[in-house]
Amino acid sequence: MAASASSILAAAASSSCAAISPRLPRGAPAAASVPSLSRHSCPSLRASTARRRQSRFVASAAPTMQPPAESRVSTVVDVHLGDRSYPIYIGAGLLDEPDLLQRHVHGKRVLVVTNTTVAPLYLEKVTWALTHNNPNVSVENVILPDGEKYKDMDTLMKVFDKAIGSRLDRRCTFVALGGGVIGDMCGFAAAAFLRGVNFIQIPTTLMAQVDSSVGGKTGINHPLGKNLIGAFYQPQCVLIDTETLNTLPERELASGIAEVVKYGLIRDAPFFEWQEKNMSALLAREPSALAYAIKRSCENKAEVVAQDEKESGVRATLNLGHTFGHAIETGTGYGAWLHGEAVAAGMVMAADMSHRLGWIDESIRKRVVDILEQAKLPITPPETMTVEKFKNIMAVDKKVADGLLRLILLKGPLGSCVFTGEYDRKALDETLRAFCNN
Amino acid sequence: MAASASSILAAAASSSCAAISPRLPRGAPAAASVPSLSRHSCPSLRASTARRRQSRFVASAAPTMQPPAESRVSTVVDVHLGDRSYPIYIGAGLLDEPDLLQRHVHGKRVLVVTNTTVAPLYLEKVTWALTHNNPNVSVENVILPDGEKYKDMDTLMKVFDKAIGSRLDRRCTFVALGGGVIGDMCGFAAAAFLRGVNFIQIPTTLMAQVDSSVGGKTGINHPLGKNLIGAFYQPQCVLIDTETLNTLPERELASGIAEVVKYGLIRDAPFFEWQEKNMSALLAREPSALAYAIKRSCENKAEVVAQDEKESGVRATLNLGHTFGHAIETGTGYGAWLHGEAVAAGMVMAADMSHRLGWIDESIRKRVVDILEQAKLPITPPETMTVEKFKNIMAVDKKVADGLLRLILLKGPLGSCVFTGEYDRKALDETLRAFCNN
Repeated sequence: MAASASSILAAAASSSCAAISPRLPRGAPAAASVPSLSRHSCPSLRASTARRRQSRFVASAAPTMQPPAESRVSTVVDVHLGDRSYPIYIGAGLLDEPDLLQRHVHGKRVLVVTNTTVAPLYLEKVTWALTHNNPNVSVENVILPDGEKYKDMDTLMKVFDKAIGSRLDRRCTFVALGGGVIGDMCGFAAAAFLRGVNFIQIPTTLMAQVDSSVGGKTGINHPLGKNLIGAFYQPQCVLIDTETLNTLPERELASGIAEVVKYGLIRDAPFFEWQEKNMSALLAREPSALAYAIKRSCENKAEVVAQDEKESGVRATLNLGHTFGHAIETGTGYGAWLHGEAVAAGMVMAADMSHRLGWIDESIRKRVVDILEQAKLPITPPETMTVEKFKNIMAVDKKVADGLLRLILLKGPLGSCVFTGEYDRKALDETLRAFCNN
Repeated sequence: MAASASSILAAAASSSCAAISPRLPRGAPAAASVPSLSRHSCPSLRASTARRRQSRFVASAAPTMQPPAESRVSTVVDVHLGDRSYPIYIGAGLLDEPDLLQRHVHGKRVLVVTNTTVAPLYLEKVTWALTHNNPNVSVENVILPDGEKYKDMDTLMKVFDKAIGSRLDRRCTFVALGGGVIGDMCGFAAAAFLRGVNFIQIPTTLMAQVDSSVGGKTGINHPLGKNLIGAFYQPQCVLIDTETLNTLPERELASGIAEVVKYGLIRDAPFFEWQEKNMSALLAREPSALAYAIKRSCENKAEVVAQDEKESGVRATLNLGHTFGHAIETGTGYGAWLHGEAVAAGMVMAADMSHRLGWIDESIRKRVVDILEQAKLPITPPETMTVEKFKNIMAVDKKVADGLLRLILLKGPLGSCVFTGEYDRKALDETLRAFCNN
């Protein structure tokens, strides 16, 4: 149904390229600071090129659909996955636009899945957006406890209980309203309920907006490990109302910025350079800076996911810093460090190791440390993490294959990385010793 | 990887069409009784036709791969689902052929999921088949309690506990060894473990061999309803060793035959006529008759599933008799009646209603009753089922859409059916009153 949404939006667009150059976010950065937008300035040209290519998975790095003139959608990023394609809408005040959301609802019944923190802030607004001028739709909701420790089977069952108790059928739509935990759980519930119903992501944290809501990874934790039970399941659309970031705690904002930095490091040097210049604007929640950072992050993720939906190759590079980071999260107990905080320290460690291997210049290593410091993110693991602890936890990482730990490491000029198990073990040992007290 | 298996088998086949006409099961029925086998007598011709067509979903009604000369595989039915395609191997003694099974195992770790009834009979044999001359593979197993009432989240978690406790990684393979409950649970566990690992179906009941192991429907029950949580997830292969039917109780055999009869009624008149002539051979477990019935059932199911993997249309016709039957199962408590027993009575009711609507001749209605009686299956619901009970339970059927109960009904000549919500409600009422005491 993403396709039909595309048609609606495409129909609203002018056929003249001159008239439909991609809109910048309101108060967007100057053109010089927005290097990628100029890459595809004519959507209709791009579309015909794509058709000529007949490639099954084509990633879009620029808006291909034009919202109606009165819409607050400043950007649409398409995730191209054949018949599982979908749009990501990014803009300020999108929850005030019932049409946008309603366009992607299937059937007459909706279940909003949210948590005790987000419900008081946005549940009423989302319910209004779903039902405004739309008397045929009825909305149920289930409010889960907030936190990573509730991302488990017992909490997931509450979603099924509600859906089945409300006699929802296959034509219903699940809506995830919240951060990464809600998105992952609601997505997995939608994947498994009646073997799959439609769902929509409304991420309300920067982490979820730039990373977890895009790409279809859903799931829950098992007592023995993170995200071990789940599904690849794509939403109908992702609706990012950047105004929801106004209620986000500072630590959560910085945590999301860690993933933004990651995209620059693994594949987008101009974006990294833009971040170096605009970090204070991001931390000050300058709307246009946030909107651009979200847009460019989603574009990067959409491109990678379109190439490798089920992580058999290049998608693994999205986990830069995550193996070290996951060890920190596990080693300190889930929730002590936020995910992005652990990833930030992990990226510094990955950069250190890459430098020890002679794969990157010292200047790049230093820029990694500097930008994360500027974002007020940790650049070393907590003191409780020992070399031993790192090694034990990393030995059961999901990226271990046949006993070999594969890592994402930087290699070459800024914006280049590799996913490999072929590296000198000595460099890993040296990095661990350099970052741990014992 | 089904594709590479195809290549292996194809390479073993001669390039001369004359030399590779599909093999009949050992002691196969005379050609006159096997109408479908003549439809595609040259695999290489068929393959090139399929390539020319470039159709995304193509169903095969005949073996396209030739097993090695010494193999006991009498038939291979391909399920064509693009990159999720896989073969169904059918033959006597296939569990004595380690190569066949090992060809579809990915990675070095295998988890066999079975139950307390099947484990003493076949677990050792399957473990041998997986490891014979294959020292690199290690096999774990988890033995679940037997029965529909254990098809729940708690039992499913035992599979995850074992997989995670054994530190299985994404390159492992799950093997379902048992009937429909084991196949559905193991399949869903494979779909959700690490967001999807490979799995193999080794069905040991006729019901699972002709129906539930083919087509990728997996899942568990919720306290409020059957199969409400699950996934569409296709196996690497289905391996049907017809010798496992030697240990099957008589009631279970008859239950499977109900689904065999269903294929004839909904889409394959010649197969139905073959069953009318060969029912006593089936009940006597005559190997060639069983092998042919399984093969033709799998071919029918493969064709339907290839057209409509996720049941948006024609696949629903596989549920002939299931709405009435499901009401009987629910109304009498799961396990009191076997699934196929309830479906048999349900098919008689569907035929009765179709006749009342004037959609089929009396002669067809009678043949439905006769063949099921011959198979020693029930042709009426139990006395405890009232009109009221039927109506209440059928009101929450998964095929209800916007309050309208859609049914699979026979219409036209033998072997034709419709899936529709457009029928005279009076006929449904009359059928219910005719089959219930009050």
